[in-house]
Amino acid sequence: MLYTEIPAQRPVTPLLDAIDHPKQLRQLDPDQLLQVADELRQYILYAAGISGGHFGANLGVVELTIALHYCFNTPNDRLIWDVGHQAYPHKILTGRREDITTIRAKNGLAAFPAREESEFDTFGVGHSSTAISAGLGMSLARRYQGNPCEVVSIVGDGAMTAGMAFEAMNDAVAHQADLMVVLNDNDMSISCSTGGFAKHLAAIWEKGHFVNITEAGEAVVEPYPNWTYTSRLHEAATNEADNLFKAIGFEYYGPFDGHDIPQLLRVFESLKKRQGPRLIHVYTKKGKGFSPAEKDPIKYHAISKTPVIVPQTLASKKSAPKYSSVFGQWLCDEAEQDTRLLAITPAMCEGSGMVEFAKKYPKRFFDVAIAEQHAVTLAAGMACEGLKPVVAIYSTFLQRGYDQLVHDVALQNLDVTFGIDRAGLVGEDGPTHAGVYDYAYMRTVPNLVLMAPKDENECRQMLHTAYHYKGPAAVRYPRGVGEGIDIQQEMKSLEIGRAEIVLHADEQYEEQITILAFGSRVSPALSAAHQLSKQLDIGICVVNMRFIKPLDTCMIDELQAKTALFVTIEEHAVMAGAGSSVNEYLAHAQILKPMLNLGLPDEFLAQADHKQMLHDCGLDAEGITESILSAWKKSLTLC
Amino acid sequence: MLYTEIPAQRPVTPLLDAIDHPKQLRQLDPDQLLQVADELRQYILYAAGISGGHFGANLGVVELTIALHYCFNTPNDRLIWDVGHQAYPHKILTGRREDITTIRAKNGLAAFPAREESEFDTFGVGHSSTAISAGLGMSLARRYQGNPCEVVSIVGDGAMTAGMAFEAMNDAVAHQADLMVVLNDNDMSISCSTGGFAKHLAAIWEKGHFVNITEAGEAVVEPYPNWTYTSRLHEAATNEADNLFKAIGFEYYGPFDGHDIPQLLRVFESLKKRQGPRLIHVYTKKGKGFSPAEKDPIKYHAISKTPVIVPQTLASKKSAPKYSSVFGQWLCDEAEQDTRLLAITPAMCEGSGMVEFAKKYPKRFFDVAIAEQHAVTLAAGMACEGLKPVVAIYSTFLQRGYDQLVHDVALQNLDVTFGIDRAGLVGEDGPTHAGVYDYAYMRTVPNLVLMAPKDENECRQMLHTAYHYKGPAAVRYPRGVGEGIDIQQEMKSLEIGRAEIVLHADEQYEEQITILAFGSRVSPALSAAHQLSKQLDIGICVVNMRFIKPLDTCMIDELQAKTALFVTIEEHAVMAGAGSSVNEYLAHAQILKPMLNLGLPDEFLAQADHKQMLHDCGLDAEGITESILSAWKKSLTLC
Repeated sequence: MLYTEIPAQRPVTPLLDAIDHPKQLRQLDPDQLLQVADELRQYILYAAGISGGHFGANLGVVELTIALHYCFNTPNDRLIWDVGHQAYPHKILTGRREDITTIRAKNGLAAFPAREESEFDTFGVGHSSTAISAGLGMSLARRYQGNPCEVVSIVGDGAMTAGMAFEAMNDAVAHQADLMVVLNDNDMSISCSTGGFAKHLAAIWEKGHFVNITEAGEAVVEPYPNWTYTSRLHEAATNEADNLFKAIGFEYYGPFDGHDIPQLLRVFESLKKRQGPRLIHVYTKKGKGFSPAEKDPIKYHAISKTPVIVPQTLASKKSAPKYSSVFGQWLCDEAEQDTRLLAITPAMCEGSGMVEFAKKYPKRFFDVAIAEQHAVTLAAGMACEGLKPVVAIYSTFLQRGYDQLVHDVALQNLDVTFGIDRAGLVGEDGPTHAGVYDYAYMRTVPNLVLMAPKDENECRQMLHTAYHYKGPAAVRYPRGVGEGIDIQQEMKSLEIGRAEIVLHADEQYEEQITILAFGSRVSPALSAAHQLSKQLDIGICVVNMRFIKPLDTCMIDELQAKTALFVTIEEHAVMAGAGSSVNEYLAHAQILKPMLNLGLPDEFLAQADHKQMLHDCGLDAEGITESILSAWKKSLTLC
Repeated sequence: MLYTEIPAQRPVTPLLDAIDHPKQLRQLDPDQLLQVADELRQYILYAAGISGGHFGANLGVVELTIALHYCFNTPNDRLIWDVGHQAYPHKILTGRREDITTIRAKNGLAAFPAREESEFDTFGVGHSSTAISAGLGMSLARRYQGNPCEVVSIVGDGAMTAGMAFEAMNDAVAHQADLMVVLNDNDMSISCSTGGFAKHLAAIWEKGHFVNITEAGEAVVEPYPNWTYTSRLHEAATNEADNLFKAIGFEYYGPFDGHDIPQLLRVFESLKKRQGPRLIHVYTKKGKGFSPAEKDPIKYHAISKTPVIVPQTLASKKSAPKYSSVFGQWLCDEAEQDTRLLAITPAMCEGSGMVEFAKKYPKRFFDVAIAEQHAVTLAAGMACEGLKPVVAIYSTFLQRGYDQLVHDVALQNLDVTFGIDRAGLVGEDGPTHAGVYDYAYMRTVPNLVLMAPKDENECRQMLHTAYHYKGPAAVRYPRGVGEGIDIQQEMKSLEIGRAEIVLHADEQYEEQITILAFGSRVSPALSAAHQLSKQLDIGICVVNMRFIKPLDTCMIDELQAKTALFVTIEEHAVMAGAGSSVNEYLAHAQILKPMLNLGLPDEFLAQADHKQMLHDCGLDAEGITESILSAWKKSLTLC
């Protein structure tokens, strides 16, 4: 069935309703599975309308998920879903049917497979390309234990370009591990996957035949069955038809139609009889069965909840642009003024707000696929030739390019600018996507300048500042929208390492509480300060610190004499964070003042609405006010 | 010529002596190059005897280096040496002949190519597998600038298994970049390279033919010329002869004899006429021309200086074992007691002290090749099955597995033990190999336990503690030898998060300076304390903190009342380091005391002897004493 609308009412799904464990699925006749697929697809459409979230990929793996749970003895056999944004059908078939509408919400199901949620979630994911390594670990462990099982890692074509997938395949062959990798080829990652690997997949199709498997478990090459395939890259494929997976030492089978359940059953059943590393190449369609998503899979990568009521608090900022849009606009404007600007993204063109730039400056835009390590060093190489590359990357993904940031960029003091998006908490995507360690892992790096803006206009000016700074510089900004203030078209570099006082203490007071706020926490710090000034008989001063590195130590020197309590606030772990950097300076200068470091606690935080999470961590105006009141009270008891 | 001894006298090298720039090399007749090669090889033997350092790889690329500088118009054409431990011939031919004996010494030439050292060093290296990304960046930059040049990345077979090399090849094809990659196949990385890629290279040989290039620049397949090749993996190669590089979209040529200068000249000259991504597969022999190294290339990967005088300070510790040996011994002992222990190394079997374990427990030993990302997630997968993997990794290389440490191990609270070697400064290898950021990037990670031992016995006990801790735990220990104390065979877990006082303040004093020392700095802190107690009229207390995370806050609470000055000392950046963690606690507890944080400065430190570097940073007993005296004096001026 091809659906055209997201159903508002829960569809009738009698077969699906009886499946609380995959063993019930396995009791069905194979020819009933088509109906299960239809019911599952309808139910996903319905559920996604309620919960929002990842969408196209889930519709694409309905048949594949059914076939896997039908052929393999889960949970004893191990299915590992790479990235995991395609795991909704898996969650529904493994006892979480009724809870699936809570996905991504506070106290609801996690956005991705999570070990603590279900024994069927064999490995927690979120970042791409880990499934082969994890599956290999499981397979080797079970072999060593003398208790082998089938291990199947399901990996998208987009995720295959990341180096660690290749590292894992190389190693799987070293051990002749009993491991199946299902390459779920839907002809695109989040952005269109580019590069040799994508061309290679297209070339496999061009050969006009596929590697089938007989009932006896033997590989046979056959001409394509009569079904059509159109690849974006069909024309572009020029490379020889040598098979990459065979070259690295995997057995290769496919490509198969990933929506053809009888064929999938036959293939998996036959391949279970074989050993060693096997790659099964299946073709699936993102958004399969829902015509708007089939037509525009990028738009339907993820969807919002069916709109019900816009929360009042959000409505007031309705007009504020997303930080990613601010970055995208700045990128275009800066590029117009400086032809040396090149922009790099590891497969996050849309998410990073670069669509406009890519259109306007195709020769200056480099989507390197999911390849964070390479993205950073590519920029270093470009900078060596006197160009000025800008790397757009999410905070959580920069963790994958950390070594390259240290060695290839900073150690050589190369002129690379980093636009670090999704820094801080990220809400519904949960702990795998939070960017809450970047101050810690970046501020130790020599030569690097690191900034965080208080609002969208400052973000633009900081990006300009970073770009014109002759060396590595980074701006880290949050997920979501800005403060709703005007953005100045004209760009002016900020003075490096200079903070600004955004609220002076009332001059009537001889003493003050000095709040040093970083990035997104400047605005709630100001609100808190206004609250506090009504409640306390002491001056309140708020500083927008702007620079995590270099820290404005002159500002601290200036303010310290009048300060009775220092407070630092950041949307980052307290540990090793920006506040910690202030502590270091106070120690260095032997300034003995009470200090309150506010930030995120030392734990992985489960998903919830971003605002809610900040509230729960005491990092909104209310929480900040309370914490300061309490610290102030305590400090008064000190001699 | 095949040499058997390292010459004590400088050899006579008339042709070489006239080459101060490769343009002088390019003025020679091609048939003079054989003599240049002979002279260069003799000179390297002589120079390495003086300086020590990497050895086998350099002898292996003598002919290749000459051919590259002869055929390409360096420095305008770009040569990028991957890892860079094979760049001695390159340095000698590019104006650094007389300085080469200073390599790795203080104020001498850097161990690896370095941009600030020479315009011929197009990219600073040290960590493996960056050269294709960097070369691609240069090639794309020069294309964009309308000023194309030849770009050649020279990469060893061992380095090719690292994911980022694959990421870069994938991207090079996306752009049809004009880039040559010379695969310098010497049939091994530092440890023997394993896995599908190594088998693939062997399979290429098994085909019995090579892809030649004609004068006109056309590829032709020819039977092997009459020269022998024996591969360790020759027998093991079972995979089909599909070509990996062609599959990913590179043109492939080779394998060629990398010691055959006339052939290399012909190949490079012909390939210059072609465009797009080209891979040239050459075979070289590590240690070529020096018979002991040809016979035992692993032993001759690097050599020590020809021994002259053993420094007195080192001689006294002559009997102390290396920390890597302590780790290796612990690993064997723990494995004997617990069959669940598996050990993983990313291609550092020898360096990490695992040779004995690998021999004793081949089924429990996993060398995953240069693949840090994979190594960490593989361990996570094994832990999911109830086994207890131990990852042996250098601090500087764990930077490459940081994201995996956070997401795949810690977020899932999996029971993985990390033995982090070469933590702190590393001496001659210079800034690329220093492990001075690990406290910062690890202590923010929830669930993780992080320890540093004061000596080799504590290292053993901490590894035992980490292993038996049910969750992720790491022990970081320095390069080099221990303190020379007895190692207890019996292993006992330390209490998690509990520090120990190693020097109590004299009870006659009401006040004390409290020194909180971490890891390798406990011993010099004690020496400093003894010095200070002679000079100051105040008690001195020294604490071996043991745990960076969780910090022993009870200990701080106990000591704070008597403490007039806190001092933290660590062999790590001051920024965000272990001392910074103490500052955070003092702030949290509103303990207002002067604090001195000692550690490494915010700069990349050039190579020197390890002891010398510590001295220069003020982290030996002498420097610590001075710093404390000065801080104490200053603190007395505080009200």
